[in-house]
Amino acid sequence: MYVLGIDAGGTKTVALLADADGKVVGEGRAGGANLQAHGELEVEKVLHGVIDLALGARRLVPDAVCLGLAGVDRESDGQIIREIMKRLGFRAHTLIVNDALIALVAGLGPGQDGGPGVVLISGTGSIAYGLNGRGLAARAGGWGSSLGDEGSGYWIGRRALAAVVRDVDGRGPRTALTPLVLSHFSLARPEQLVAEIYDNATGRRAIASLGETVERARAEGDQVATEILREAASELALAVASVVSRLEMRGDQFPTLLAGGILKGVAWLAAEVTRHLAEVAPRSVVTPLAVEPALGAVRLALAEAGGGFRVPPYVESHRLTSQ
Amino acid sequence: MYVLGIDAGGTKTVALLADADGKVVGEGRAGGANLQAHGELEVEKVLHGVIDLALGARRLVPDAVCLGLAGVDRESDGQIIREIMKRLGFRAHTLIVNDALIALVAGLGPGQDGGPGVVLISGTGSIAYGLNGRGLAARAGGWGSSLGDEGSGYWIGRRALAAVVRDVDGRGPRTALTPLVLSHFSLARPEQLVAEIYDNATGRRAIASLGETVERARAEGDQVATEILREAASELALAVASVVSRLEMRGDQFPTLLAGGILKGVAWLAAEVTRHLAEVAPRSVVTPLAVEPALGAVRLALAEAGGGFRVPPYVESHRLTSQ
Repeated sequence: MYVLGIDAGGTKTVALLADADGKVVGEGRAGGANLQAHGELEVEKVLHGVIDLALGARRLVPDAVCLGLAGVDRESDGQIIREIMKRLGFRAHTLIVNDALIALVAGLGPGQDGGPGVVLISGTGSIAYGLNGRGLAARAGGWGSSLGDEGSGYWIGRRALAAVVRDVDGRGPRTALTPLVLSHFSLARPEQLVAEIYDNATGRRAIASLGETVERARAEGDQVATEILREAASELALAVASVVSRLEMRGDQFPTLLAGGILKGVAWLAAEVTRHLAEVAPRSVVTPLAVEPALGAVRLALAEAGGGFRVPPYVESHRLTSQ
Repeated sequence: MYVLGIDAGGTKTVALLADADGKVVGEGRAGGANLQAHGELEVEKVLHGVIDLALGARRLVPDAVCLGLAGVDRESDGQIIREIMKRLGFRAHTLIVNDALIALVAGLGPGQDGGPGVVLISGTGSIAYGLNGRGLAARAGGWGSSLGDEGSGYWIGRRALAAVVRDVDGRGPRTALTPLVLSHFSLARPEQLVAEIYDNATGRRAIASLGETVERARAEGDQVATEILREAASELALAVASVVSRLEMRGDQFPTLLAGGILKGVAWLAAEVTRHLAEVAPRSVVTPLAVEPALGAVRLALAEAGGGFRVPPYVESHRLTSQ
């Protein structure tokens, strides 16, 4: 038996082919595959590519596929991905879940697929996702760059750019971000940011890549950069707090896993988030996600092949039911 | 003698054909023509269209053209527009200036083209622009939606959307914006916002159109909406303060003109901005811009035809010279 586990994120996509024991025997890697950022055709192309790479020369049809994708648990996106997977030849036993779920399952380890646990991801986008002991899920954030990805790389980058132009205009305080951001983009003058951010096809990714520049400014003692990262930490912790509260896990013991390029690359931010989380759920143990999220997809694909995996339903939102 | 004055904004473009006395004898109107939002080809198409409409059946070549366009005083944009105007057959006597300058000149009235005065525009984007008595200009904001258009319709709309998803996630306070924004977009559930905002080709304009919904929520007493508009007012006043300070006009007597769809459509915001401005420049008289900005372009085109108009140079930015 073979299964495919796929992690499709904002900046990279990973497909792992594994045997019945979960041992990885093939892998494929490519750039981002996010419906909102890259569009349907690009997502199809990327998925096709990584699956081909993972299968390699093997002439086999996996017994099950699990695909984790940002935002996919919203009705319309899920439908589009389901159609893509059909076109790629995967009709049966294809499980499509939120990418945060596969990251959580990867971090919880074998036998713990049902939780409890929480994962906080801050990469290009951001999301908090949790499972309680009763098989219910909740999420906060993960709405994409225009609606709500507070604390994500894109959000941090936008704040940094706003701080730079406020400095240049004299509307805001001076900040070390101004020379650092200009040098990050190899620009001589702030006016050139306009062409860089709007004309450049990779503008969105360019903005999301500013996280480490902000961290550099903070390490140099810059107040504006410190404030941006502090607010990011507080926003990320708030997302976890919302999940923990809706899942009624505040007093429980469970792992909280930190994942995504920003939490991995900016140690100060991860430490600041961890400090906040001690108040959000005092008995939770916060650790970095040490394994590849795609391994969670492999595990869910194995569960699907071995009898069917039930995607945890979302707990009812108080906010919606009472409106 | 005939001249053309063109105002190209984020949501609409107006071309006026006028005679030597400034009397308007033809006009053309179309949608937005912003390089950052619409792209070069769309801008060329829109400009071609409004000019054709303004000229009508007349077989004449205007003696001068003045075109006001957001962000155009940044080197690269100006070059692109210059090429477009050449392709449209306007080689000589074509003046391309920031759209805020034509709005200011329109509002200052005949004989006052050189200032002093300040205009604050909040439409799809936002900018403060001023001229002091010594022929120097300064601007703040107007960097576009990803860099810095604080207090603009787009900025207000993004804040409103963020507040809605924070409410839905339980990360933020309940707000009347949630049902009002959903109803604005005719959506049954908040999850549908994702498709509305990201898949919709007019997503950016849709976001910028939320200003009046936010005002409705404020009028109903909603705290979140009130805070968004309050912060918008404070950001807009800050942009004026930066201009006034760099032009050393704080104690001077000069008109401050309020323009753009948001300041026109949301009276509460205009009043709040006016309140702030009393502190920024106590002797300035704040009034709504009562005439069409394109009339300012007509006046500058007449000046250009009658000997050449010198575009006011920007005062040196303290921030940049000392870095």
